[in-house]
Amino acid sequence: MNSFGSRFRVTTFGESHGKAIGCIVDGIPAGLDIDIEFIQSQLDRRRPGKSKLETGRKEPDTIEILSGTFEGKSTGTPIGMIIYNTNQKSRDYDSVKDLFRPSHADFTYWHKYGIRDYRGGGRSSARETAIRVAAGAIAKLMLKEIGINIEGGISQIADIEGDITRFDFEYAKTSKLNALDPQVESLQEKAILDAKKDHDSVGGVVFTRATGVPIGLGEPLYDKLDAKLAEAMMGINAAKAVEIGNGCKSSKIRGSQNNDEIIADGFVTNNSGGVLGGISNGDTIEVKTYFKPTPSIFKEQSSIDKYGNEVVCKLEGRHDPCVAIRGTVVCEAMMALVLADMTLLNMGSKIEHLKSIYR
Amino acid sequence: MNSFGSRFRVTTFGESHGKAIGCIVDGIPAGLDIDIEFIQSQLDRRRPGKSKLETGRKEPDTIEILSGTFEGKSTGTPIGMIIYNTNQKSRDYDSVKDLFRPSHADFTYWHKYGIRDYRGGGRSSARETAIRVAAGAIAKLMLKEIGINIEGGISQIADIEGDITRFDFEYAKTSKLNALDPQVESLQEKAILDAKKDHDSVGGVVFTRATGVPIGLGEPLYDKLDAKLAEAMMGINAAKAVEIGNGCKSSKIRGSQNNDEIIADGFVTNNSGGVLGGISNGDTIEVKTYFKPTPSIFKEQSSIDKYGNEVVCKLEGRHDPCVAIRGTVVCEAMMALVLADMTLLNMGSKIEHLKSIYR
Amino acid sequence: MNSFGSRFRVTTFGESHGKAIGCIVDGIPAGLDIDIEFIQSQLDRRRPGKSKLETGRKEPDTIEILSGTFEGKSTGTPIGMIIYNTNQKSRDYDSVKDLFRPSHADFTYWHKYGIRDYRGGGRSSARETAIRVAAGAIAKLMLKEIGINIEGGISQIADIEGDITRFDFEYAKTSKLNALDPQVESLQEKAILDAKKDHDSVGGVVFTRATGVPIGLGEPLYDKLDAKLAEAMMGINAAKAVEIGNGCKSSKIRGSQNNDEIIADGFVTNNSGGVLGGISNGDTIEVKTYFKPTPSIFKEQSSIDKYGNEVVCKLEGRHDPCVAIRGTVVCEAMMALVLADMTLLNMGSKIEHLKSIYR
Amino acid sequence: MNSFGSRFRVTTFGESHGKAIGCIVDGIPAGLDIDIEFIQSQLDRRRPGKSKLETGRKEPDTIEILSGTFEGKSTGTPIGMIIYNTNQKSRDYDSVKDLFRPSHADFTYWHKYGIRDYRGGGRSSARETAIRVAAGAIAKLMLKEIGINIEGGISQIADIEGDITRFDFEYAKTSKLNALDPQVESLQEKAILDAKKDHDSVGGVVFTRATGVPIGLGEPLYDKLDAKLAEAMMGINAAKAVEIGNGCKSSKIRGSQNNDEIIADGFVTNNSGGVLGGISNGDTIEVKTYFKPTPSIFKEQSSIDKYGNEVVCKLEGRHDPCVAIRGTVVCEAMMALVLADMTLLNMGSKIEHLKSIYR
Repeated sequence: MNSFGSRFRVTTFGESHGKAIGCIVDGIPAGLDIDIEFIQSQLDRRRPGKSKLETGRKEPDTIEILSGTFEGKSTGTPIGMIIYNTNQKSRDYDSVKDLFRPSHADFTYWHKYGIRDYRGGGRSSARETAIRVAAGAIAKLMLKEIGINIEGGISQIADIEGDITRFDFEYAKTSKLNALDPQVESLQEKAILDAKKDHDSVGGVVFTRATGVPIGLGEPLYDKLDAKLAEAMMGINAAKAVEIGNGCKSSKIRGSQNNDEIIADGFVTNNSGGVLGGISNGDTIEVKTYFKPTPSIFKEQSSIDKYGNEVVCKLEGRHDPCVAIRGTVVCEAMMALVLADMTLLNMGSKIEHLKSIYR
Repeated sequence: MNSFGSRFRVTTFGESHGKAIGCIVDGIPAGLDIDIEFIQSQLDRRRPGKSKLETGRKEPDTIEILSGTFEGKSTGTPIGMIIYNTNQKSRDYDSVKDLFRPSHADFTYWHKYGIRDYRGGGRSSARETAIRVAAGAIAKLMLKEIGINIEGGISQIADIEGDITRFDFEYAKTSKLNALDPQVESLQEKAILDAKKDHDSVGGVVFTRATGVPIGLGEPLYDKLDAKLAEAMMGINAAKAVEIGNGCKSSKIRGSQNNDEIIADGFVTNNSGGVLGGISNGDTIEVKTYFKPTPSIFKEQSSIDKYGNEVVCKLEGRHDPCVAIRGTVVCEAMMALVLADMTLLNMGSKIEHLKSIYR
Repeated sequence: MNSFGSRFRVTTFGESHGKAIGCIVDGIPAGLDIDIEFIQSQLDRRRPGKSKLETGRKEPDTIEILSGTFEGKSTGTPIGMIIYNTNQKSRDYDSVKDLFRPSHADFTYWHKYGIRDYRGGGRSSARETAIRVAAGAIAKLMLKEIGINIEGGISQIADIEGDITRFDFEYAKTSKLNALDPQVESLQEKAILDAKKDHDSVGGVVFTRATGVPIGLGEPLYDKLDAKLAEAMMGINAAKAVEIGNGCKSSKIRGSQNNDEIIADGFVTNNSGGVLGGISNGDTIEVKTYFKPTPSIFKEQSSIDKYGNEVVCKLEGRHDPCVAIRGTVVCEAMMALVLADMTLLNMGSKIEHLKSIYR
Repeated sequence: MNSFGSRFRVTTFGESHGKAIGCIVDGIPAGLDIDIEFIQSQLDRRRPGKSKLETGRKEPDTIEILSGTFEGKSTGTPIGMIIYNTNQKSRDYDSVKDLFRPSHADFTYWHKYGIRDYRGGGRSSARETAIRVAAGAIAKLMLKEIGINIEGGISQIADIEGDITRFDFEYAKTSKLNALDPQVESLQEKAILDAKKDHDSVGGVVFTRATGVPIGLGEPLYDKLDAKLAEAMMGINAAKAVEIGNGCKSSKIRGSQNNDEIIADGFVTNNSGGVLGGISNGDTIEVKTYFKPTPSIFKEQSSIDKYGNEVVCKLEGRHDPCVAIRGTVVCEAMMALVLADMTLLNMGSKIEHLKSIYR
């Protein structure tokens, strides 16, 4: 289904080459300043065509708020938002309308629904993530009110991995590939451009973190914070793995190496990535999302068409050589949506909360 | 909250040292043979104390069905199940009742709820996973009716990783550590016993797969199959990373290497792990779940108590030196729950479905 | 929250005097003909200003589909719809912006949210029901595919009640007050015009029915068909009571009078209103929804402003003298949404359903 | 499905003649005193066999708490509760196992599920309402903490209606038929006994109210308080109509008669029944639930069996002549569940709530 979240809930619509994409954000507390310039600034970060590292599709992605605010503030009613599609080139897709692009959703949509909007991937296109960014921006605004800040950047491109001790989130904001480690940025950029030159694509990893998170977010046992973050990140187009804190590495070491000891000042290490027992522990939340290389490449590939005939697939059009880059902003948005939801859900975990609000 | 799934939904209750743990399984189609011996057999696979690789806590974990069946078949009404706790040793926990065990949920439960059942971790204990296994067994029974089969095993312990070309799921069923690769099994066992001898613990990885899955399971965009699998696996105690198909590796390579080409016979490779665009593609679904080492170790560790005083934490009691082993059965159960839910949710994806059932 | 339904789910946004109202309809099976002229025709039935029995606000209420269809058919992805507001007169509300109109939602919105879009009632306005009608029209299209037909009309205005043996649903479609009983129509009309002349308003009752409903819709115990219908109807603006079948009357009589005996041909009577045990029994579903008189009247009333001062409330502007009339179309829409949801939810009630779809 | 509520959520299991009925109550804030004697006292009020006005089935209905409390207080984890069935007489049902009792759920369960636990109505039996009462008792305990009190009683039996100006909720607690109006109590009792003597049954009405409700409960537009109350009440076995406040009567009168004017001291009247725009207005919440006569009567009725043959249905066994009486306690429980859920959902309606809890 097309809703995300339980109390802070986003429902989205729209296809790559339809009239518009949009969303309804429900559960926003009343009285929040809805800073539309901030929302637009987040979209601008995700907007395609800013550099040659990205698809050539150029769209202003102008967000319009249709409801839910009054005199600049949220009213407690749902905020409807819309982005009109302006730069679709549907004819680019005529050649692929009957075939299944390898490692794309064409095949599964066709079989599941028996019908397929082949223009630009339709609903399965990453185009939809633009509206997640808009919704996530509102979540960020809400979280900022209680001191939570979310940031992200590229930690790895191809096999070029940054060194976490050098990660600089301010730097990433100025980097055209959102690089966290300035020392490997140019190598990472080269890896992308090399792939592009070869009519190919390449994978990458986004590191997302939240600071200022209060202790207590996450609703065990089946709405744990880490489980919801994993769901949120794995649901982004092209994501294939998610790690919390030490992630995969923790499986290789011993308890005495992985445990975070505690002293009066707090946790000595943060191998947990800010989550214990599915609940935030007050430390920085750290999540890594692994993106596969863009499946749309410009090399010949074997495939079949919808009648089962073997065909050669040779794509045209405009595609990001590395989806992880623009995926950074989407990862931040999804983390914001999860934390906003958990912030609301946690209210009422103690009987004192009720008394403080109803008395 | 304590429910998992939307249409095939499990709700659980119970703490490690309470009277009982139990669940309600809702959404089971009527007319399914509820084979209680099969359910018990799954619990027996997870049961502790079967070998020295596991905790010494010995419990028969006898499942009792309280409702929802009539003459051996499901009736379409909810199935209530219960397992009485029989071998709690609450006094083991007297020494830790006021302190926070490093990398345990003690700290976060205390702060979130202001109260904590310290006996054996209370609700945060992996004890609860027994009831997931029982619920998952019913899901397996349902999935078997349409040809879906779920299996799992250990692919890695510490840094000893099996070779996927040697994975043998039948062998794993006979291995006391559920090892998938017979050639590294003894090394993996040694790694566990070495850690145990050092009063330490060690991490591991569970590989879970589903075969016979029809094309079409998964509900984009926010109930994608891979996103739900990630949520399900990351929500298991001690899980810190989840991969689908090629997972992390796909971030390191190029599109031309990672794409699954298609020929008339089907997909040439399965780097996708059986999921495209969040929907099953008919190929084998493959998921890896990374478990951190058991946080309960018998070495001295720094911690604080609930009054903020620094203390030395020295645990006693009985703990698995490697939670991944018994985690195998839990991973299978969670995959079964996700697929059962998706199987029901997918009904109605085409108008033809309605016509076939209502005409 | 602003979503209705579980599998066939509508989420709406928009205020009376904002830019637009809209919705996202999720869960529509793929391959359904989305007949936009039918959708518009339903909106036209609800559109204000068609006669002097209705508010003078005149809006074309033109529906626009933004997504979810391809070549005229649903694709299984969410359908976004929008209606731009074109005839708001916000200045009508300047005089009431600080006071609470009696029996309106002004008072509760102000206290709940601490902020209030006073223009035309904002989100609490019945304006939002236009978009329910659009969503309900899609539900009707889906239900028609399996033979379900939904109709409604006015059974009572003020204390003038029609005789059920004369109810004529075809007639109601031609009546400007949707009257079911032609013999009392003119009396009912007079009651409305008399109230209007007195600057007052009057209540009424809508009778809604569904024919062709298969046996089995409704998900006990907490998503029973009658419970969901009651929720749906009571949630409509100004609704204060809901009856299924014999309703209130059944509380006054004996079991031998109220029971529906069964013969080979079916039920002898339909006091149950088509629902037994929360599940449709194949007979006509009959629901009555009682609407209070429009709270917006043009007589002086006592009230307070938001500072607690006593004030005289004297409304201006344009209001329906009897909301039940246009409420008819809304009742039909809500019944359609409930039945569409239940139709999808019922799939999977038997294991045979799965086999028929997955084998 | 078998869960009720969104944040304060109850999931139930169990059939009339199975081993046990039970529930899981999720979302209870931590730190609440779980007074098991109070819970038992509520069950005792509902317990059958207390007088000749009720079924002869005698069961102690002893509630057992299995989880979720520690040292007498809720811990924020789910509370599992169980009542073992002790006085089933399954043989009473041998004669009806193949036929459909008129106006019972037998017919619909059989068709929906293709299987039916005929013993005592199985899941469709009002036996399940015992566990709702237990869950509702916990909701009452929580609501009491913020000053909300819920009470109910019989306002009408057959056509003998009490006068609301004489309603005495304290008296109702002492009346064996929970009568609210002492002056008509004996007539109401006689109506029941007359029906019983005639091997028949009779309907009745339960009036439920909540006092001390804060302004702001209810989540428009699709989780309105009145809509949720209607759903809750209509979902009770044998309920056929629900009114809020003036209910049906409001449809007969004019706006000037039905509107609740406001003065500095508050609302002059309460025709709204405490709800405006789907949100509590601080006044007493008043709901009437109309129960049909028990369908189980001891007169001969026409019916069919599951093979379609016409048969004479002549019931034996033990049945309440008027289900409304014991329904009183169930109505109170359902109102408590709705209000508990809405109390939690309302937290976060203003940004100030977040600041008060997270700063």
